[in-house]
Amino acid sequence: MVTETLSIKLKNRSLKYFSEHGAVIYISKKNIVYNSNIILKKCINKIIIPVIKSDAYGVSAKSLINILIDCGYTSFFLGRLSEGIEIRKKYKNIELFILNCGHPFNIKHLKKHKLIPVINNLEDLKLWSQYSNRKDYCVMHFDTGMNRLGINLQDLKNLSDKKYLKNINIKFIMSHLTSAEDINNIMNKEQLNILKSCAELLKIITKKNIKTSICNSSGIWLGKKYLLDIVRPGAAFFGINPILNEKNPLKEAVSLYAQITQIKDVAKNSTIGYGRTLTVKKDTRIAIISIGYSNGLSRLLSNTGDVYIKEKKMKILGRVSMDLTVIDISIFKDEEIKNGDIVEIFGPNRSLEKFAKINKTIPYEILCTMAKSNPKIIT
Amino acid sequence: MVTETLSIKLKNRSLKYFSEHGAVIYISKKNIVYNSNIILKKCINKIIIPVIKSDAYGVSAKSLINILIDCGYTSFFLGRLSEGIEIRKKYKNIELFILNCGHPFNIKHLKKHKLIPVINNLEDLKLWSQYSNRKDYCVMHFDTGMNRLGINLQDLKNLSDKKYLKNINIKFIMSHLTSAEDINNIMNKEQLNILKSCAELLKIITKKNIKTSICNSSGIWLGKKYLLDIVRPGAAFFGINPILNEKNPLKEAVSLYAQITQIKDVAKNSTIGYGRTLTVKKDTRIAIISIGYSNGLSRLLSNTGDVYIKEKKMKILGRVSMDLTVIDISIFKDEEIKNGDIVEIFGPNRSLEKFAKINKTIPYEILCTMAKSNPKIIT
Repeated sequence: MVTETLSIKLKNRSLKYFSEHGAVIYISKKNIVYNSNIILKKCINKIIIPVIKSDAYGVSAKSLINILIDCGYTSFFLGRLSEGIEIRKKYKNIELFILNCGHPFNIKHLKKHKLIPVINNLEDLKLWSQYSNRKDYCVMHFDTGMNRLGINLQDLKNLSDKKYLKNINIKFIMSHLTSAEDINNIMNKEQLNILKSCAELLKIITKKNIKTSICNSSGIWLGKKYLLDIVRPGAAFFGINPILNEKNPLKEAVSLYAQITQIKDVAKNSTIGYGRTLTVKKDTRIAIISIGYSNGLSRLLSNTGDVYIKEKKMKILGRVSMDLTVIDISIFKDEEIKNGDIVEIFGPNRSLEKFAKINKTIPYEILCTMAKSNPKIIT
Repeated sequence: MVTETLSIKLKNRSLKYFSEHGAVIYISKKNIVYNSNIILKKCINKIIIPVIKSDAYGVSAKSLINILIDCGYTSFFLGRLSEGIEIRKKYKNIELFILNCGHPFNIKHLKKHKLIPVINNLEDLKLWSQYSNRKDYCVMHFDTGMNRLGINLQDLKNLSDKKYLKNINIKFIMSHLTSAEDINNIMNKEQLNILKSCAELLKIITKKNIKTSICNSSGIWLGKKYLLDIVRPGAAFFGINPILNEKNPLKEAVSLYAQITQIKDVAKNSTIGYGRTLTVKKDTRIAIISIGYSNGLSRLLSNTGDVYIKEKKMKILGRVSMDLTVIDISIFKDEEIKNGDIVEIFGPNRSLEKFAKINKTIPYEILCTMAKSNPKIIT
């Protein structure tokens, strides 16, 4: 079903942004709340800690966190120390975890801004054990097969001096799945078992029960036994499909629009844009739209991609430039189209998932590389 | 010649940024000044108006403008109204031109923030003529073959009511070359001639001499007759090569670095990262580096790209993730490498130009999509 590109009410509300910025990102609070409710329903009695790293996947952590706080969440994962410091400025009473505290491991900074570190290696573990107080929480990250950040089970076993583990206050331990979106992948079970072994070993050493976490967004769809104590959804709030090759159970919450800046007719055999990479085969009506590779439309789509106007697909002509792109609007009559008309890059007529596919990437990368400068409107 | 990845002095100055942000962008003021001097030498007696649109090609307009003001420039081109408003907040006495004023054409806003519009179509021309004062400057943009923004010569000829042109105060007229980086392209000359015809026609209508401009950065290397009255370099300040398939006469001024966050040894037949797309054929020492597709290292480089450590090329293993990437550092001995060591994405060991090539794009797109969140250090 094809839906309206942008409601007139919404368009009128955002005219100023289109005129000043060229492109506008819409964030649907309704859909984020819908997705949150799906997550809550699947994770009853679990602790849910949303991940809003990389500026909430490029969409704006400050925009998202307000919505998520309204939904009742009180703890969040961030990627870097700088993100934690930024969010802490405004939000004093929420719990903030830092996935990658960087090097050198800056305990003074963490404590100053009340940030909880995720400890990824033995070097940081030793420092934390030495300089933190018993009341300062940390999270321990185990690498159960991703071969990325995290302490290996074997490292834990080999750790000659176990005092490091007794001196610290472990809020929970976590790991990260390599193939969570693929429900049939045997790796998921393997990783789950390794994390459980880590928890058991830690229990023996510390004489305490240890809470565990392995699910990112996709993990939540792997079944109840993966939910453990704590789940860490991120992309699911934006409705990125958590399951490979299956119908999306969530509603996409981000869409991207630009406006027509100029319309003109070009004669047969004219060339379009930089490098004259395209020659029009017939008289063609073109529109120049106010978006380019600097703000959300990759240069990869030169001569191959398309955008939507009034629910119809329009081909991109020539190279995408930095903040402008040319499209073929020959199918419209004079009175049907005008300067200022809205162009959908992804949204109701084409999902972010499909748009990512034609960009030969995944929705996460599309969101992360959309211009930070595009204004975000929460609808 | 291979040069040092990052001087110790510079590294020590930026440790805090690496630890807090993961990746750091360095801007070489010395090289920007060098490039500016080359431009000045080639454009003696010409008016030079730097283009710092799209947040100075993603590198930060606020960082660049200070350097350029120090170099003596007093006028600048920006892409959108929002960029002009932002820069005007801090800089009261410089001349700011807006390349794309958007729709609806907001004269009130332009005047309020003392921004000079580039008029791209007859609709905006009529509005400007109706509502601007005789003392308000504008620029007229002619489309001489790009088939993107701009008024065509034929439109100008057809304009039935010439009063629109007599009522306005044209600072200069401009056009944009499709193939400026290709010195042998006949289109350059054609476009130059069309712009000259536009100026002649305008002179007849307005009874005034009209200043002209056709050169972007590359245009400056096409020869003196292209310089006209005003030139508009942008990318050249950053040292992006202005000439196709020729040695770069400029010095690149932007480089990107990350740090090693963790080092580990993985056994033969281990898989790396999301989707387990790579299996190591032998025991391998890996480093996890603090950069991913959200902050400057495209997912396209998964399993194919590389980065530099201590002047040596390291292969990317597995998929690039959002803010982390895994590389093969097997060639280093224990004592040769450690957490916190600096990784070059592009810089002294690999030019931005070469990095763009392996990303199947142009340097402009690399700069524009590097994370705005990466701190910029001016060296």
